[in-house]
Amino acid sequence: MADNNLIDLRSDTVTRPTAGMREAMATAEVGDDVYGEDPTVAALEAEVAALFGHEAALFAPTGSMANQIALQLVVPPGDELLCDADAHVVTYEIGAAAAYGGISSRTWPAVGAELDPDVVAGMVRPDGYFAVPTRAIAVEQTHNRGGGGVIPLSTLRELRGVADEHGLALHCDGARIWHAHVADGVPLAEYGALFDTLSVCLSKGLGAPVGSLVVGSAEKIARARFVRKRMGGGMRQVGILAAAGRYALAHHVGRLADDHAKAARLAEAVAPFGVLATGVRTNIVPLDLTKHPLDAKALAAAARAEGVLISVLGPRTARLVTHFDVDDAAVDRAGTVLTRVLRG
Amino acid sequence: MADNNLIDLRSDTVTRPTAGMREAMATAEVGDDVYGEDPTVAALEAEVAALFGHEAALFAPTGSMANQIALQLVVPPGDELLCDADAHVVTYEIGAAAAYGGISSRTWPAVGAELDPDVVAGMVRPDGYFAVPTRAIAVEQTHNRGGGGVIPLSTLRELRGVADEHGLALHCDGARIWHAHVADGVPLAEYGALFDTLSVCLSKGLGAPVGSLVVGSAEKIARARFVRKRMGGGMRQVGILAAAGRYALAHHVGRLADDHAKAARLAEAVAPFGVLATGVRTNIVPLDLTKHPLDAKALAAAARAEGVLISVLGPRTARLVTHFDVDDAAVDRAGTVLTRVLRG
Amino acid sequence: MADNNLIDLRSDTVTRPTAGMREAMATAEVGDDVYGEDPTVAALEAEVAALFGHEAALFAPTGSMANQIALQLVVPPGDELLCDADAHVVTYEIGAAAAYGGISSRTWPAVGAELDPDVVAGMVRPDGYFAVPTRAIAVEQTHNRGGGGVIPLSTLRELRGVADEHGLALHCDGARIWHAHVADGVPLAEYGALFDTLSVCLSKGLGAPVGSLVVGSAEKIARARFVRKRMGGGMRQVGILAAAGRYALAHHVGRLADDHAKAARLAEAVAPFGVLATGVRTNIVPLDLTKHPLDAKALAAAARAEGVLISVLGPRTARLVTHFDVDDAAVDRAGTVLTRVLRG
Amino acid sequence: MADNNLIDLRSDTVTRPTAGMREAMATAEVGDDVYGEDPTVAALEAEVAALFGHEAALFAPTGSMANQIALQLVVPPGDELLCDADAHVVTYEIGAAAAYGGISSRTWPAVGAELDPDVVAGMVRPDGYFAVPTRAIAVEQTHNRGGGGVIPLSTLRELRGVADEHGLALHCDGARIWHAHVADGVPLAEYGALFDTLSVCLSKGLGAPVGSLVVGSAEKIARARFVRKRMGGGMRQVGILAAAGRYALAHHVGRLADDHAKAARLAEAVAPFGVLATGVRTNIVPLDLTKHPLDAKALAAAARAEGVLISVLGPRTARLVTHFDVDDAAVDRAGTVLTRVLRG
Repeated sequence: MADNNLIDLRSDTVTRPTAGMREAMATAEVGDDVYGEDPTVAALEAEVAALFGHEAALFAPTGSMANQIALQLVVPPGDELLCDADAHVVTYEIGAAAAYGGISSRTWPAVGAELDPDVVAGMVRPDGYFAVPTRAIAVEQTHNRGGGGVIPLSTLRELRGVADEHGLALHCDGARIWHAHVADGVPLAEYGALFDTLSVCLSKGLGAPVGSLVVGSAEKIARARFVRKRMGGGMRQVGILAAAGRYALAHHVGRLADDHAKAARLAEAVAPFGVLATGVRTNIVPLDLTKHPLDAKALAAAARAEGVLISVLGPRTARLVTHFDVDDAAVDRAGTVLTRVLRG
Repeated sequence: MADNNLIDLRSDTVTRPTAGMREAMATAEVGDDVYGEDPTVAALEAEVAALFGHEAALFAPTGSMANQIALQLVVPPGDELLCDADAHVVTYEIGAAAAYGGISSRTWPAVGAELDPDVVAGMVRPDGYFAVPTRAIAVEQTHNRGGGGVIPLSTLRELRGVADEHGLALHCDGARIWHAHVADGVPLAEYGALFDTLSVCLSKGLGAPVGSLVVGSAEKIARARFVRKRMGGGMRQVGILAAAGRYALAHHVGRLADDHAKAARLAEAVAPFGVLATGVRTNIVPLDLTKHPLDAKALAAAARAEGVLISVLGPRTARLVTHFDVDDAAVDRAGTVLTRVLRG
Repeated sequence: MADNNLIDLRSDTVTRPTAGMREAMATAEVGDDVYGEDPTVAALEAEVAALFGHEAALFAPTGSMANQIALQLVVPPGDELLCDADAHVVTYEIGAAAAYGGISSRTWPAVGAELDPDVVAGMVRPDGYFAVPTRAIAVEQTHNRGGGGVIPLSTLRELRGVADEHGLALHCDGARIWHAHVADGVPLAEYGALFDTLSVCLSKGLGAPVGSLVVGSAEKIARARFVRKRMGGGMRQVGILAAAGRYALAHHVGRLADDHAKAARLAEAVAPFGVLATGVRTNIVPLDLTKHPLDAKALAAAARAEGVLISVLGPRTARLVTHFDVDDAAVDRAGTVLTRVLRG
Repeated sequence: MADNNLIDLRSDTVTRPTAGMREAMATAEVGDDVYGEDPTVAALEAEVAALFGHEAALFAPTGSMANQIALQLVVPPGDELLCDADAHVVTYEIGAAAAYGGISSRTWPAVGAELDPDVVAGMVRPDGYFAVPTRAIAVEQTHNRGGGGVIPLSTLRELRGVADEHGLALHCDGARIWHAHVADGVPLAEYGALFDTLSVCLSKGLGAPVGSLVVGSAEKIARARFVRKRMGGGMRQVGILAAAGRYALAHHVGRLADDHAKAARLAEAVAPFGVLATGVRTNIVPLDLTKHPLDAKALAAAARAEGVLISVLGPRTARLVTHFDVDDAAVDRAGTVLTRVLRG
């Protein structure tokens, strides 16, 4: 169970709904969304589609389902998706693309959020009889295992060129695209214009309890509605959750800059110990403990003993994430704890 | 969008949360359920497991996902499930068992909720090299396309015997098992004892906005948690919805008898026109229009024109469903409308 | 290992190539068929396509693969196939349709080779958002578990009407369609005209060692070539086997009438013991031991002890199959043995 | 159709059976291998198992099926396989691992046959709730797209250590492992000892018309027999083909050294034009045309016009393969043609 005295830096998924958000849920107008009759869901879907300059959007219970629905739209079973080896879609969705979508994948090496469109272009297989046909490329913005890194707009434009040249779809796992938008000042619609499909999440940095959306063309989203039902994601009076999402969009996007600043302060605290994996651009501080006496589990245990929770991503890899429920004072305390623990 | 002046007999999924239920949601204590830290979800899961005398239960966004998770637990990809040809798991879950679980299925003919354990036994394939190995049998209690019919406890016990004899798992799609419990007075735990896995739904007759659960052994539910994540059903602060479910369990089970009585009154109204498909046991009135001048679409259109919504299930098959949001007066009005329309 | 003193009535798959057939294989002109360069394969494919009045055909290593390729052509993953509950495609192909094609299936009850097009029509689900879309119907001609029964041409024509009315594909598992052709005198092209896809087998009654073909339109077969490669069925100098197939087509079709006569004689021998499951139309004698003191395993063991091999299909179901390698004398001996054993 | 005046350097799959091999096929003793009764298949399987020091082996119609059967044995649906981005199993088997096995894959960058066990170790995901569980690593020996390169035994031993440390299976796509054996002088059993499963091919360098085998423990191969049937690879009197395989093993392994020498001579001929992608170790000469005026298609067309066939693997990548059916004189003529064409 959650302990409110702990400073929880494991993930931005742990945020709890605010009073205003709870009020929005309690008073939400709802209907049966499987019948397409929930007005709050419809409003949320229209808002998100508009933000990204796409025709339509679809609510889904999780970011994983939103991604998987999108991938099933753009890659037929047996055909191929290219992404990086640390991408959420091939790591934290537990093989769903292959297991449920029959989607074959090859990956390029991930180094933070770095992305070389030429490397990607070199991996594309032609549509033919002898080799698996490549159908789509997926990127992650910001990149979770890539330390919250932001792929530059210019790189994404080059990648769009690669996709166009080879007739591929381009999908964005945009669970934290809000952070990229705030960090780089790129309008969401500018991102939207580059991708055939996007997934975006309301329940990470934005602080809603549950919910993601798939964004795309009207035709794709009509098909997405069918796939969502097959995946078991067609919920009924889900306007309750959509109301929280609308509240989050209205109130919690701009404030992500605070989370970025908090992450920068944490990064400053740990930097002297040589454990920063990359620079810190958004709300994630990735730790590389390869050269530190503590491994990731030991660091997490020591921090936990002093009331700070962090995520272990690998034997020598850990992660700090700032969010709504960690205020400045908590960040300072966490910095002190981590400094003490890393000093050993 | 939903129109509150319409009498909606399409399904019991259309119910909207009551004030008390909304209050329960607004004040729910929540945590990150992917980390297993949402106390309201944990409480709901424990309650439902206890009701059915099983060790554990798992919250899922929909009944379809709850069923599909359970089926993936008991049938390995490529192996076989037996069920009736009208079962929800092979009709309204849009092929998910095969598409995502790789589950092969053969079906026995459905006639209402009738079930002949000998017929089922005759379909079992031995586990071997030449033929697909049968692994599980699924039944639906009450049976949706079977007119809300209730499978007698004695029949289910015989079927359990068939399953045991052949080493098969027995799954219950218990989306409306509450109705069977109320109609036949069979304790839920007695049902629970007969099945390896059950799915139960909070958002149909019980009136919660969203949510179902898978019920089974601790070992199965631990695996179910993994499968749920792969299916994209691992939500975060979903205690908001679980709170509505707990409220529904506490307040809305006993009152299903009212819905059954309302269905009986509707059945009485339409019976003179020879369109009752079966007797009416619970909250569903199945219509068979084979011998009536109106087909299902025409009947639905005529009823809608007078403010009554019904479901079309096939060219000559329709359905009326009573629920929380249709009071006695509405039932009377609906009966009058349907009488007028059927009279022609 | 095979024992040449045994009379093998288990299946017509056990036939060994004749001297003429071996000669054809030894002298076959071959090339790399993955590159489409094996002249003997090309000739066989053209011959078979022509026999059935279709544009094209494709060689496959087994009847199971030929069926599964065809099903993958006509039913997208997650969509639905209807067939009978005893069909080879959902029994002896070990769940491949679901496991590899993601194909959902519902089945009508099988009674011999009987087929009621109205029952099939009643099972079709409309293409829509709520229910799994039915895409194809499969029949088996002659029907293996249905005792080698032949579906009348008139019934198949009605079924074609059902398929057309609902926009469904019609597939024929024609592993033994040669027997139906010989038994009913229906030209193969007349059968061909009724189906979107057929599979036909060279290695059962026709006596070739290995090989089946998928038959259909040029467009379907082009796609089939791709699916065959994905299934691992794209062989190289396989003209060796195709040569045996061509030989079988040239020499072994007409003689199936002899196998039918032999089956009729065996049926006569066992009929007095009340164990004939159905009438015998082709080369299969289905035994129903429900009312006999011996069950299927006991009968098979007793027969084996006297040098006669038969197939056990279920606890009380067995099968005798006549073929090229069982001559008249062997049939007489087998009849004597079975009479003695059944008399007890 | 194949033209015997052409010098075919596209692949070693194009070889046609020799007179001796045809004789072996024509006189092969056969039985129904689905029943496990083909003595020639059984003998071949026993021989190959023994060569690699494993308990058992299973004949399969193609190398693709042999690989896919093996992968289905070691990676459950949804779990993960690691291999290089150019591996045959994720390139030329057209997505079968994902489409049919539900196998998720991530890939390390391929540079020839180079393999860094540390890079592989860094990609392994722990078996857990959050991330896809890695289950197996696959390597290819020799490496097809890697220019016929040979992975050193010491590297494979390190990789075995990585697999053991993480509890992973290690699979070898050994379609051309015979070439590695001949090039490096490593006994086949020494390779065999390093892998949980291997696939080996009879129809590439060894010159048999059709056939591959899966090699592994008795338990794995028993399961493989089941999976092969599900894949549609359970053939009947397939001893015809196994006889060719036995002949190839007896007569064609040692002579691969000649093919290696021929490849070396071709490499010498083209080396002056800066188009050799890597050194040449076995029977494959990989061409990298990045810096040459001709792209791969143009080179292939120009060579074809002079009677030499080569393979196009990518826009600037091509391949020459030597084999049984290209004798020394043909190699010289091919060298002359390629020299002329490349000189431009």
